[in-house]
Parts: sequence; C-alpha cells; structure tokens
Amino acid sequence: MNVIAEDATRLLDTAARAAREAAAIVARAPRPAKDAALRAAAAALRARQDAILAANGADVDGAPGLSVAFRDRLTLTPARIEAMAQGLEEVAELPDPVGRTLAEWTRPNGLVIRRIAQPLGVIGMIFESRPNVTADAAALCLKSGNAVILRGGSESTRSAAAIHECLAEGLRAAGLPEAAIQVAPTADRAFVGAMLRASGLIDLIVPRGGKGLVTRVLEEARVPVLAHAEGLCHTYVHAAADPAMARSIVANAKMRRTGICGATETLLIDAQIAPTLLPLLIEDLRALGCDFRADDRARAIVAGLKPATEQDFATEWLDAILSVAVVDGVADALAHIRRYGSEHTEAIITQDEAAARAFLDGLDSAVGLWNASTQFCDGFEFGFGAEIGIATGRMHARGPVGLEQLCTYRYLVLGTGQVRP
Amino acid sequence: MNVIAEDATRLLDTAARAAREAAAIVARAPRPAKDAALRAAAAALRARQDAILAANGADVDGAPGLSVAFRDRLTLTPARIEAMAQGLEEVAELPDPVGRTLAEWTRPNGLVIRRIAQPLGVIGMIFESRPNVTADAAALCLKSGNAVILRGGSESTRSAAAIHECLAEGLRAAGLPEAAIQVAPTADRAFVGAMLRASGLIDLIVPRGGKGLVTRVLEEARVPVLAHAEGLCHTYVHAAADPAMARSIVANAKMRRTGICGATETLLIDAQIAPTLLPLLIEDLRALGCDFRADDRARAIVAGLKPATEQDFATEWLDAILSVAVVDGVADALAHIRRYGSEHTEAIITQDEAAARAFLDGLDSAVGLWNASTQFCDGFEFGFGAEIGIATGRMHARGPVGLEQLCTYRYLVLGTGQVRP
Repeated sequence: MNVIAEDATRLLDTAARAAREAAAIVARAPRPAKDAALRAAAAALRARQDAILAANGADVDGAPGLSVAFRDRLTLTPARIEAMAQGLEEVAELPDPVGRTLAEWTRPNGLVIRRIAQPLGVIGMIFESRPNVTADAAALCLKSGNAVILRGGSESTRSAAAIHECLAEGLRAAGLPEAAIQVAPTADRAFVGAMLRASGLIDLIVPRGGKGLVTRVLEEARVPVLAHAEGLCHTYVHAAADPAMARSIVANAKMRRTGICGATETLLIDAQIAPTLLPLLIEDLRALGCDFRADDRARAIVAGLKPATEQDFATEWLDAILSVAVVDGVADALAHIRRYGSEHTEAIITQDEAAARAFLDGLDSAVGLWNASTQFCDGFEFGFGAEIGIATGRMHARGPVGLEQLCTYRYLVLGTGQVRP
Repeated sequence: MNVIAEDATRLLDTAARAAREAAAIVARAPRPAKDAALRAAAAALRARQDAILAANGADVDGAPGLSVAFRDRLTLTPARIEAMAQGLEEVAELPDPVGRTLAEWTRPNGLVIRRIAQPLGVIGMIFESRPNVTADAAALCLKSGNAVILRGGSESTRSAAAIHECLAEGLRAAGLPEAAIQVAPTADRAFVGAMLRASGLIDLIVPRGGKGLVTRVLEEARVPVLAHAEGLCHTYVHAAADPAMARSIVANAKMRRTGICGATETLLIDAQIAPTLLPLLIEDLRALGCDFRADDRARAIVAGLKPATEQDFATEWLDAILSVAVVDGVADALAHIRRYGSEHTEAIITQDEAAARAFLDGLDSAVGLWNASTQFCDGFEFGFGAEIGIATGRMHARGPVGLEQLCTYRYLVLGTGQVRP
C-alpha cells in the first residue's frame, strides 16, 4: 500500500469510528430531533444560498473542459438550492421507519417474539459530481437513523463542503452529533478504495452514478453494496391489449424521460396484433422523436425501421431509441426477456387477465406491471416519499429503496423466566 | 490463474448455469411438487441406508488421523440417517414461503402495488465435513424455491454423493429438475474459490462451519454472503432480578449446551444484587462443571475465581467457561456489551419493566431477551420450523435464518392504463 492509500485508510478509519458512535445516538434519536435537524438544515441552505453558489462557482471554474451534461449536473442555481431545501423538509414529513413492529408472534412456551425495524448503522454513499445528492442522501440516512459518510465526485468538493456545513448546522440545532453526517475529508480516490474495504466499519455502500462507478464499487467492495446496475426494461403489448391504452402507455414508458432506469428499452408486440397496432405505436413514438432498432418481423410491418442486431436487444439505450421485436405470445415474450433483460422492470399491456397472470408469474424482475407504464418504477411513485435509488441485486432490497429499505431489523424476545429444554 | 483454478471455474460455471435454469423452474414449482420431492428423498435415504453407511465408512477410513470431534461430525449412523430423513419430512410440513403477499397498498392514481416473496435464485452452500448438512441445506433451499450448489468438506465426498443420490431421486420422482440440487463436481479447494467469485451466477453464499471457513468466505467472496461470524452473548442480571429466575436462566444460558452460538459467554451482574446472588449463581454453575474468568469486583465476592483478562471478555468460549463482571446498572452493562460484544444475543433478567425497556432499547444486537435464556436464539425456538444458520451481518437477514429469510421479494403493480405524469 502506498503512502496515499495508507493516509486514506487512516482518514476513513477515523471518520468511520466517529460515524459509528454517532450512529448509536441517531439510531435512538426521537423523530422530533431528526425532523428538527432536517428543517434547520433546510433553513441553513436557504440562508447560505450565496455562499453555496460561490463555492459551486469555484467548483465549476476549477474544472474546465467539462462536457455540457457534466457541467449541468455540477452547477447549482437558486432554484436547485431551494429544491434541496424542500427535499429535506419533505423527508422530515415522512413517517419514522425506525422501531416499527414488522411482525410479532407468541410461541407455545409463552415467549413473545417481536421483529422491529432498526437502522443499518453506518452507510457509505459514493456518487458523482451532483452536489444535490449530498443533501438528499444525508436526509434519507438521518431519517432512517443511520450515520453516513458521503463521498461525491472530486469536482464538487467545495459545493459539497458548503452544503455539508448546512447539514451540520441542522444537526447542532437539534442536539444530534455532527459526525452522523460526514463528507469525505479528502478528494483522493484512495478514500473510495478505503471505504470499499471498510468491512466492520461501514455497514453498507450505496453507489449512485454511471455504470463505471457502480461496476468498480461492485467489483472492489468488501462491504455489502446496494446498487443499481442496469435497467433494460421491456413493455410487452399482448394480443388482447386495448389499442388506445397500449399507445398511451408505450409512448409514456419510452419517451416520458428516456434517461431513467425505468424507461422502456424494448417493445415486444404479439404477432396477432402487430399488423394493426405496431404502425400506430411507431407513428406516436416517431412524432415524439424516437428512433428504432427492429427485428425482421417488425420491419416487414412498418417501413423504414433500422434493423436490430443481437447486441441492440441487450442495450440499455437511456436515449430516444427503442428496440422492437414481434413475439408469439406470453411464453415467447418471457423467453426474450429472460435472454436479454436485466430483471429490473417489465410491463404487459392486455385486457386478458389470464395472460397478465402468466406473464407476471413468469418474471423474475424486481417490478412487473400490468397495464401501466414502466416509468412508475420509482420510490416516489411507489409512495415511499423519497428514494435513494433502485436496487438491482436480490439481497436485502429490490426495486425502489426508500427509508424502510435503509433499515434492518432485530428481535425482542419477551419472557417470564423461560429456559430452553 | 493456474490450470486447476481454470478447471474449477469452468466446472462451477457449468454447474451454476444448470442451477440457474433449474432455479427458474423450482421457483414456480407448486408446493405439492416440492414436498413430494422431499418425502421421496426421505424414503430414498431410508432405502439406501446401507449404501450411505458404506460410502461414509470409506470417507472415515480414507481420512486417518482425524481428531475425535472431527471424526464424530463425519461419521453417520443409522440413527443419524433416520434423523436426516425426518428432517426432510419436517421441512415438507412447513408452509411454502414463496409467493406470500408481504405488503399491498393502493396509490392515489389507482395503482395496486403488491410486494411478494420470491426465491433468491441460486444458493452456494459451503460447509465442513458434516454429511447431514447436505440433506438439511438442500431441503431448505428447495422448499424456498431456490437451486443450490453444495460444497461440503473434502473428507466427506463419498457420503455427500450417496446422500445427494437420494435427493436427486426425490427430485426425479416429483418431476423437478435434478440440477436444482447439486454437489460440487470436484473436491478441489479451487472450486470454493470459483464459487466465491461467481458474481451473477450464484446469488448468495451461505458458509456453515468454524471461524476459519467463515472468515475466508467473508474475505474472498464477491457474491453476497449470509454468515455467522461470532456469538459473544451476554446475560445481564439486573438489581431487580428475581433470584430464582436468574439462577434458572443463567445456568441454562451458559450450560445447556456450551458449543452453540446462543450460549452465554459473559455474565454481567449488578453490584447491588451481586453480594447475595452471585455466590448462588457460581455455585449452580460450578455444580454443572463450569469454570470462570472474573473481574476484581466479582472475585471480591466469591473466592476462588480465576481473574479475567481484557481478552477474556472478548472471547467466545464455546466451552464450559464463563466470564463474569460486576456492573453498575443498565448503562454500565450496555457499555460493557458495546465494548466486547458481537451484537448477537443478549438477555436481561429483571422484574423492573423500565430497566428491561432501557436495556433492550440500548442494544444493537440481533436478539435481545427479557427474562429468558439466550439459548432461545434458534430458528426452531423462534418457530421457523428449521434454520440454515444464524446471520450476524446486518443486511437482508439478522438472527435465525429460516425459509422466509431464504427469499427476496418482488413487486407486482396492477394498473388500468396509468401513465406517469
């Protein structure tokens, strides 16, 4: 290990130990204290708007040659700061996930066993240069009783520090330990490596960002990870689909926002209905600016579609491009999804309940929808009030991750002197 | 990578791909099919008893110089084979954990969201040379709709193969794919390494065995792990304890079985009650053959106790040895537990409900008991019907791991044409 890595490990160790102590306190903090901290932090964000904008301006100036998209993600505006502040206040409004009784039963020997929700402990957030994530993630971690170490992209260091100062002010105002919300004390990339190796110090790593970041985290982490890998979502228009509903849902599922993980990437349509319906679907989507990669059967129905390669069906476009394939019924649609999908979110459009049931039963995906847009795969749309991301693994949490999913559980066993035979 | 490791990786890859296909089938297998497979496997175990004993004899003869304990774990008897068969039948009796509705709610837009239990997929079990684990683990994985690859200790290869043949017979009899239950095709240790690296092929690794095995798995695994690390459990006798209850529980918690993870390793007793009660507790335990490592305050009350070192309080004895410390109230007991404990299982003995509440609220442990023996930390005692182990991590499952914990979940979203605004 070189000197920088040693330094990073030492810095992480210090931060994580302080976070662990703070976690024991925020895990037991009453809801009013947590909510007061969030509201005070929101007020601080508004009060310090000029200082935050100045810090952000220095970040943007300090990183010339950024792409337009990168620069846009990095740049804060008064409206974005207000949105952050409102986000903190919205999280304060949400119910407290900690201490909920998840299950309770009594054993024949009289022992009462109660499973209760409990914070995970210390969470490490690793994200790209989106300063607003600093506030969003901190709010969710605090409300769920966890301590958090936030490591944003190195281009956003000054912005993150300015936002963090507001969060710290909120914690102080509520009498909660400042170490419950920390930002990485160094922009060195070695600190990320130290976080990923911090087994026993950090309980969970949540990466938020592009595929490169997530892949690195999943490969290197020694700590459990809740990550979003890929969302190659399908919408399957069944032979018994209501045509008007299919048109409305497909257009929304693909084009409402093309860059989110719940956006449909592939349209599957039954051969029976394709001759009449596919031209209409394509027409709708073309009008919205969508381009296509279609199999031979679809191209025989609609002229002018680009041919799809094998690789196209395995591609998460995150763009105004739709892969299209004609299939022969539910089993064929499921076979396509099993071959190319990422077990994220798939929808069937049909008026035939038996077909819907067969399709949903045949999925392994985190979310299966019947007669609704895949873009509903979202913590807010699920009613979680907020989300830290969409988990694509199978352990602990699948799909939208909100406050409840940032908790684990523990058992209370209430006896009257029982001993085990 | 050397040739052996390459071979092992190839073998694992083939096994895991077959397991993945089988998993898709057993995940959807109706309960009667799974139960029929388990019952037929039990019948096969009984019918092939002689062949299993012969294979086991060859395993025992093939590994001379084993310790007595190792040899005992490896050796099968007619009674142990019958116990395995009964174990399979008991799992068949348990309710099916797959497809349970875990939660359901309706959104303001009319979407019905349902969270349902779903098998994890492909589980890799890594265990030591205890042939019975082959049957026990396979039964739990099959009943929970998962496929499993079983890699037992290399000394038990022939026994595992003979038991596996019975399990395969059960699967065939029920029309389920044989690849749903596989044993490692090689005794090479490189196969374990290949399992641990099989991200995307294996969904969960469950190690069962001593600290060395579990530590290796936790360090090397690229796949999520549900493991039992350490059970350094405390029983705290509060000042308001009922003396007779305290004597009964402490003796049970320490001495019923000293080798299980829920056995109490450290007795904490309040200074107020220690002068009268500690001598009785020690007397009871001495009569059961227990030895002690005590702090100075305890040694000032009871003569002849060996002094405890700092390290003793951090030791999971798994033996007839008890660490003893005198403490000053709930906060002091919690401080001791936080310093030395492993967040596994702790009990308070008291008639004072406020003290019990303060103690239980202050714990981070997977299981906290009030007026009951720590030895109740067990899947059967929790009413799970069976357990694959006790999880000491914080993600996915904590405490006893039964059929429900071998499941993940997915969402069904039932709409009537909704699109996202």
